[in-house]
Amino acid sequence: MSEIIVQKFGGTSVGSVDRIEEVAEIIKKASKEKKIIVVVSAMSGETNKLITLANHFGENPDKREFDALVSTGETISSALLAMALHSKGISAKSYSASQISMKTTDSFSKAKILDVDAKKILKVIDDDIIPIITGFQGITEGGDVTTLGRGGSDTTAVAIAAQVGAKRCDIFTDVDGVYTTDPKIVSNAKKLDSITMEEMLELAGQGAKVMQTRAVEFANKFDVPVRVLSSFKEGSGTLISLEDETMENAAVSGIAFQKDQVKFTLHGVGDIPGTAFKILGPISEGDIEVDVIVQNVSVDDKTDFTFTVSSEDQEVVENIINSIKEEVNYKELMIDSNIAKVSIVGAGMRTQTGVASRAFKALSNNNVNIEIICTSEIKITMVIDKSLVDKAVNVLHDEFELDK
Amino acid sequence: MSEIIVQKFGGTSVGSVDRIEEVAEIIKKASKEKKIIVVVSAMSGETNKLITLANHFGENPDKREFDALVSTGETISSALLAMALHSKGISAKSYSASQISMKTTDSFSKAKILDVDAKKILKVIDDDIIPIITGFQGITEGGDVTTLGRGGSDTTAVAIAAQVGAKRCDIFTDVDGVYTTDPKIVSNAKKLDSITMEEMLELAGQGAKVMQTRAVEFANKFDVPVRVLSSFKEGSGTLISLEDETMENAAVSGIAFQKDQVKFTLHGVGDIPGTAFKILGPISEGDIEVDVIVQNVSVDDKTDFTFTVSSEDQEVVENIINSIKEEVNYKELMIDSNIAKVSIVGAGMRTQTGVASRAFKALSNNNVNIEIICTSEIKITMVIDKSLVDKAVNVLHDEFELDK
Repeated sequence: MSEIIVQKFGGTSVGSVDRIEEVAEIIKKASKEKKIIVVVSAMSGETNKLITLANHFGENPDKREFDALVSTGETISSALLAMALHSKGISAKSYSASQISMKTTDSFSKAKILDVDAKKILKVIDDDIIPIITGFQGITEGGDVTTLGRGGSDTTAVAIAAQVGAKRCDIFTDVDGVYTTDPKIVSNAKKLDSITMEEMLELAGQGAKVMQTRAVEFANKFDVPVRVLSSFKEGSGTLISLEDETMENAAVSGIAFQKDQVKFTLHGVGDIPGTAFKILGPISEGDIEVDVIVQNVSVDDKTDFTFTVSSEDQEVVENIINSIKEEVNYKELMIDSNIAKVSIVGAGMRTQTGVASRAFKALSNNNVNIEIICTSEIKITMVIDKSLVDKAVNVLHDEFELDK
Repeated sequence: MSEIIVQKFGGTSVGSVDRIEEVAEIIKKASKEKKIIVVVSAMSGETNKLITLANHFGENPDKREFDALVSTGETISSALLAMALHSKGISAKSYSASQISMKTTDSFSKAKILDVDAKKILKVIDDDIIPIITGFQGITEGGDVTTLGRGGSDTTAVAIAAQVGAKRCDIFTDVDGVYTTDPKIVSNAKKLDSITMEEMLELAGQGAKVMQTRAVEFANKFDVPVRVLSSFKEGSGTLISLEDETMENAAVSGIAFQKDQVKFTLHGVGDIPGTAFKILGPISEGDIEVDVIVQNVSVDDKTDFTFTVSSEDQEVVENIINSIKEEVNYKELMIDSNIAKVSIVGAGMRTQTGVASRAFKALSNNNVNIEIICTSEIKITMVIDKSLVDKAVNVLHDEFELDK
């Protein structure tokens, strides 16, 4: 059998019947050379329309029902895309999560993929039919419909690519690749032809918004090469490569930032073993992603414990922290939603020193105060005032000459 | 366990979030006295919106994809109705056809129910949860999504009522019961408190539009009492009783009519055994309902074979008839879409003579020409010119004093 490519089309790519026609053309063209499996998001706007309907019945609708509701968006776009392919003489069939046994955990709205019936999908492409699979959807062992959370269609695509042994997973979106930073903020931001999986992982996690973090993790874990490209204009996009040993890595490959963040500080926590787990355990049980975690050195056996979460999780996290007040025995809870994260990402950072100090100096010269610093091997994350983000990103982009 | 009532809500009953709130109130009230199972249609307008999307890719989209597409309407309304019930403190869960194994034949868009997992539904109500089941949807043995055709939610409701041994199936709609004829055409049309299943069968088949024929057939076959009532105003509706032996039946209980009809006449067919089957076999294989079938006496071993079908099936039937021209050996095919059917229905007709002659006389006095006549035990159907329908219905309603 010839090589398999998974093509995933996001919401804007299938945002109208005309767009669906164009996507069908892309698939038709690709299907002449390779076996194609398609994963599709809901038409843009559709999911929000459904959420508005749901919100009429209260702000926190039952998650099982919520998932049953919003998953219809993908069912609609997959059926329409199959029809569009038929109209071009191409055999295609839509498949829901239930129909390909896309099994997930039962944490509704944030479900994690457990397994998928690769044999069924392979049987379909063996019959020269292009399967059009609903992204974002899953089913529990008991048959309840789940969703993978926003952007989950990327994860669906990569998971399927991994399970069927696809040669590559092409993520079609409305941008033509991964840039050194957001071109809306820095006018001379530059498209990267390739990027390492690690760099992409850091960039996606920091809100580069090109591709969902979990999908990149999946790709990394299962060695699936991913390409990010545009369904709106031709181009080769950015290849997210598994390894990049032949090339010398740039010290800094991109600047990422994320504004929808909230900082929680538990002031006056007892500096005894197990405290961090007592705080983060209940939060991660709620399937909430915690990012920057910082614990300062202790004074008089008391310390401050700080972490950031996405703004949408603020209320839930606040309730959790309040409920463990006695157990953790902190003095005060401080919540700051006026913050943002800015990150410098680069696989070459490992071997090239001085990146951090150059960054701090450049920001300081431009009066950007850094509240928290947190570094990993290939990333430096800084929490700063939300109003200074655009300035900081520009300063860093210039400092590391990313337009060159 | 207390008695079970199946409540089915049609598209206009759940046509907006406000309507869904009101339907939730009806269910809440009923749930205080009985175990309730709910079957729900798509929000009115939703299915047509999806059909418009599909038609962008050609007039005859693949039926498998079409069914996957339009079935999402019911998934949406069932999830929203469950949320509305939650907001009123009532436990409820939505279930799709797949989740309750609503197995059907694989004739997409016109699928017939084969079986449903009654145990699963009974388990849900045993747990004091109200199941909100998607009407209209089914799944094939292979797991493809099917739909039962327009109005199929009634059939879903009756089938479930039959399988779970419900005491009654309440069909909530936008009319407050079954009338002697359409109140829009005859101003003094009268609501019937009860009607026999047989009468209802004839009325529904003739387009009384209160309830789908197949659903009435199901109710008849499985002895499920059905009540038709309004979700917009209080009232006891019309009870469709299984038997009506205690009462003397009215000779005529209602006048039905149907305008979206096409008459096919195969002129000069050989009057030999098997001809009717040769003509109707391929049509019924296409799951097309054929109604009035008339074959005139033969002249010189040649006869005319006439039947009517729904206008929406005209093109398909025309193709079928053309494809069997040699086999059937007819001289000419005549198609007339300028016709309509008017029927007089009444269980008492069996025992009271003269209904037909009174009807013919009244129509003749009012210059309504009858093209075809076809009678059954409790129904007299007449095919007339489409432009004369309103007049004919009024004349007959007056003649049989149905306003009394």
